[in-house]
Amino acid sequence: MEPGLDDIRAAAERIRGHVHRTPVLTCATLDEVSGARLYFKCENLQRVGAFKMRGATNAVLSLGIEEAARGVATHSSGNHAQALARAARARGIPAFIVMPTSAPAVKRRAVAGYGAEIIPCEPTLAAREAALREVVARTGAVFVPPYDDERIIAGQGTAALELIEDVPDLAWILCPVGGGGLLAGTALAAAGLAPGLRVVGAEPCGADDAARSLAAGRRLPAENPRSICDGLLTSLGERNFPIIRRLVHAIWTVSDAEVVSAMRMVFERMKLVVEPSAVAGLAAALGHAEELADSRVGIILSGGNVDLDRLPWLKSAAGQL
Amino acid sequence: MEPGLDDIRAAAERIRGHVHRTPVLTCATLDEVSGARLYFKCENLQRVGAFKMRGATNAVLSLGIEEAARGVATHSSGNHAQALARAARARGIPAFIVMPTSAPAVKRRAVAGYGAEIIPCEPTLAAREAALREVVARTGAVFVPPYDDERIIAGQGTAALELIEDVPDLAWILCPVGGGGLLAGTALAAAGLAPGLRVVGAEPCGADDAARSLAAGRRLPAENPRSICDGLLTSLGERNFPIIRRLVHAIWTVSDAEVVSAMRMVFERMKLVVEPSAVAGLAAALGHAEELADSRVGIILSGGNVDLDRLPWLKSAAGQL
Repeated sequence: MEPGLDDIRAAAERIRGHVHRTPVLTCATLDEVSGARLYFKCENLQRVGAFKMRGATNAVLSLGIEEAARGVATHSSGNHAQALARAARARGIPAFIVMPTSAPAVKRRAVAGYGAEIIPCEPTLAAREAALREVVARTGAVFVPPYDDERIIAGQGTAALELIEDVPDLAWILCPVGGGGLLAGTALAAAGLAPGLRVVGAEPCGADDAARSLAAGRRLPAENPRSICDGLLTSLGERNFPIIRRLVHAIWTVSDAEVVSAMRMVFERMKLVVEPSAVAGLAAALGHAEELADSRVGIILSGGNVDLDRLPWLKSAAGQL
Repeated sequence: MEPGLDDIRAAAERIRGHVHRTPVLTCATLDEVSGARLYFKCENLQRVGAFKMRGATNAVLSLGIEEAARGVATHSSGNHAQALARAARARGIPAFIVMPTSAPAVKRRAVAGYGAEIIPCEPTLAAREAALREVVARTGAVFVPPYDDERIIAGQGTAALELIEDVPDLAWILCPVGGGGLLAGTALAAAGLAPGLRVVGAEPCGADDAARSLAAGRRLPAENPRSICDGLLTSLGERNFPIIRRLVHAIWTVSDAEVVSAMRMVFERMKLVVEPSAVAGLAAALGHAEELADSRVGIILSGGNVDLDRLPWLKSAAGQL
């Protein structure tokens, strides 16, 4: 069943003390640049460095004692893998993470550092799914998907819940959209708490399946998605799409160059480490200054897990653009 | 007269709304690494990116209407220059900033961006002081020194005041020491609010005049100071020394390599942009793990103004170490 505000409130209650209530920061310079009043919900300062900790923790803590005892499993090389590993460790249950052999060593180490068992697989979706089926069959672990899941959507919605509690009278909330867990949760929270508030998903133009899906009225998968925003390459989930279609005001697309420029502004002016995917909302705000003029705009900075040796404005990393 | 807790409280009242009440953040990983419970007062998230905004704002707002009208002046190429320029703009009075011609263009632009008049001078202390005397004589502006000043010390003490309000039962506070404005203010706040609390100054071993001065019982200037912590190369101020001597538990020195390692941890694990000087306290904590074991330790992250093209762990910047 589609989650609602009550599920988000229940998730907030459940995960309290397990995740940070992240601060909302403002920046006079970015207000000047954008012409709006921007309120940044800093999920880069969340545990494991991303909002993914909210959904994963909600999913792990929602399990009954018996099913929890068998552990949880997922396939991911990104922030969801770390989040699920850490949430499982906090509950004292096993986590099985299927990771492609192509995943960076630093990400494998992080997941292993939280005590999860890593199951390596070939870097194709088919291989990932097969390895996941195998581990679930072998261990009885519960599959916790990264976004296409009610518990995940409700958990991710707690970020917007806190933002709306902390900043009254927001006219807009902008957040990144990949699989749509954060965007669907945000839209549900806003619809329940502040019906006039407009929620916008920000998406790389090189991975614009959400924009195309909304335009077509049906889910269209991402085809050869390509963007510096490695967290936003996935296609909208089955459960996420109808929520987004019903409740989201628009999807705004951003170029990689806009993302890198916004990322550098956040490092330089806000003194925050953010990953490219995290600033899609800010990049979209800067590209839609007229629509947002003088409004109060919430922006979810979704994560901070970036390779500090390869920051995209450095010459050595320029080939990425 | 030496400032006290009342002056810090008055400063806090005066600067409210002009500076951020910065968040106090924690990090499970750094707690594990240090063996203590660390509470980070994030002055890198302060306006202009450093605690210097507190003292400069307190000084500017302490001026009477007539003296304020003539403006304020200082010589600085660092965070104090930006802070004074911005505080003056907020009050609508002129600021005259003597800056050596060797100062990076980005710092000149920042100061000019706040509407201050920049007076260029040769990069020697004698030239800076002469240029300052000239501008004060010409304009009647009030000289606001970067640290050797009661209003500055009281203003910088407001960071510790907030930290102690937010985190009860701290056993230690560690903060960087250069000229001693932040350290003296922190020591005064702690002595007034939490008498058992130990305040420690953290200093680069290549600029250890505070450690040597405390050992000698008199101010010894820094001689050819050399450290990646460009904010901590100055010698202790005349007004700062007796406060520090009386109230500070110890000065702990840190190597540049320890600073760079701590800086990278803060970027990577806390997702915060900090300048080298800012992490001296954390580096000192990691080097004194036995003394701090299991204690509640406040750490002031003093600033975030770092050149993002030359982060010290990048190969292109390795020559700095």
